[in-house]
Amino acid sequence: MHYRPVNWMENPNAERVKRVAQLAGRSAVRHRRKQFLAEGPQSAAEAIRAHLGLLEVSDSTAHFWPPGRTVAEVYYTEHLAISNPELSDLLGDLPPEVFVGKTSDSVLQAMSDAVVHQNIIAVVHLPAAHAVPSPHSQLVGALVRIQDPGNAGTIIRTADAAGADCIITTPQTVDIYNPKTVRSTAGSLFHLPVYTGVDLESYVQDFQGQIFAADGYGDVLLDQTKPTVLGRPTVWLFGNEARGLNDQELSCADHRVAVPLYGLAESLNVSTAATICLYSSAMAQRSGSS
Amino acid sequence: MHYRPVNWMENPNAERVKRVAQLAGRSAVRHRRKQFLAEGPQSAAEAIRAHLGLLEVSDSTAHFWPPGRTVAEVYYTEHLAISNPELSDLLGDLPPEVFVGKTSDSVLQAMSDAVVHQNIIAVVHLPAAHAVPSPHSQLVGALVRIQDPGNAGTIIRTADAAGADCIITTPQTVDIYNPKTVRSTAGSLFHLPVYTGVDLESYVQDFQGQIFAADGYGDVLLDQTKPTVLGRPTVWLFGNEARGLNDQELSCADHRVAVPLYGLAESLNVSTAATICLYSSAMAQRSGSS
Repeated sequence: MHYRPVNWMENPNAERVKRVAQLAGRSAVRHRRKQFLAEGPQSAAEAIRAHLGLLEVSDSTAHFWPPGRTVAEVYYTEHLAISNPELSDLLGDLPPEVFVGKTSDSVLQAMSDAVVHQNIIAVVHLPAAHAVPSPHSQLVGALVRIQDPGNAGTIIRTADAAGADCIITTPQTVDIYNPKTVRSTAGSLFHLPVYTGVDLESYVQDFQGQIFAADGYGDVLLDQTKPTVLGRPTVWLFGNEARGLNDQELSCADHRVAVPLYGLAESLNVSTAATICLYSSAMAQRSGSS
Repeated sequence: MHYRPVNWMENPNAERVKRVAQLAGRSAVRHRRKQFLAEGPQSAAEAIRAHLGLLEVSDSTAHFWPPGRTVAEVYYTEHLAISNPELSDLLGDLPPEVFVGKTSDSVLQAMSDAVVHQNIIAVVHLPAAHAVPSPHSQLVGALVRIQDPGNAGTIIRTADAAGADCIITTPQTVDIYNPKTVRSTAGSLFHLPVYTGVDLESYVQDFQGQIFAADGYGDVLLDQTKPTVLGRPTVWLFGNEARGLNDQELSCADHRVAVPLYGLAESLNVSTAATICLYSSAMAQRSGSS
């Protein structure tokens, strides 16, 4: 008989495996169990680093992902040591309360939402629901009924890169804890607070700054907007992929701002438009202060 | 017996159906047969509009997609008339040389590369291979060993929106005529010339302007680059997703330019970086001339 570590798991039909896999499914399961999955090395590593207190995040981000109370369980295959030795080493630093289990390929695949698993899955605690976004922020991205998980994740990743203070999402936006969105954030989910189910009207009323609606039909063109204006504290509203922002949502904005289309393209994907809007603000804000 | 139009096709195993489906497969098949697929209403519509001479494109774009010689065959389901009446009407304007066939759902699905077909597929002629990109352009995006079909398509779509004169791709870049890339361009493939298999070194040597390498490790920060500099004629080089640009490719550039990362994100997806770079140049170029 071969030696086997205690946690080595080989049965894809085991109850524990099923319970993890369920977290990749319906939103209701995640919210009832107050857990979700961070799959793949980028997302899992940032969840683990948050748990270990290794991320230099703001206080409000640490409120979402508190050191010592972020990760519940970690599953990985022996290939992780080869594909990602740094992350593999990090697992040894996790305290004993976190269940760390080595599994076979077929077990990790059974847990995974991805077509091909990426050697590691972390089960992460959903953040406490009572956090409220501050009205004093420099740059905020608002996901307003965004439906595509990949778009939501990509905008969160770009907002992180652009140094946004936070993301807010309105009630009818896709569940950002679904595995596709988490993967698309490439770890950025753990870098800034994402406030979900926010009432847009009351938030923008309190916000100390300007509200810009990203709107292909807007009467203000982004390239005609002065850096001094772009440099002010700003919330950008990004609307539903098919229908954009509705009248009520547009009425929350001070200006409807269009990304100029110089060629023949009829429109931009919402995550492409968000990239241009968030970075235009961030670069104006940062270069003004430098 | 019900009345059936002559072209109604119901057998997914028919020889014609197989021949169309093969174009969604290996690059070698497309290049041998000199045809590819434009799937879905956005791509098919722009191919058809190019064929009908309805697109206001540059002479070099018209060289790629000549009126009367762009589309070979069109297949659609009866649902197109409901989902996209404007495009459905356009089919009636196609000359008799273009084979237009109404098919059953199962036939169109058998032809399609997509998980769910979108009611229309056009078989399009590959452009003549002898076109050479001009050294006199204002804005050019270069795909340098980009491997992901979606990234390639998204950059082509953004380049179109940013009003770029053309796209060039180097020999080891993904085949831009594969169905995933074509779909990701959302019709933009037919709006600007995409020169494939271009020798990077000789192209940049001839180019009358500056060469910027998009490079996360670059020593020039995009937000520190003056609009007067960004406003000059520019080729942007975008490198491989995993490995970026190699030393030889970097040596083709006048500057290695990094998109600033203000938050904790370690990197940007190449198509996100390309969006920021191309739009920064385009906005500087256009606002300078207005």
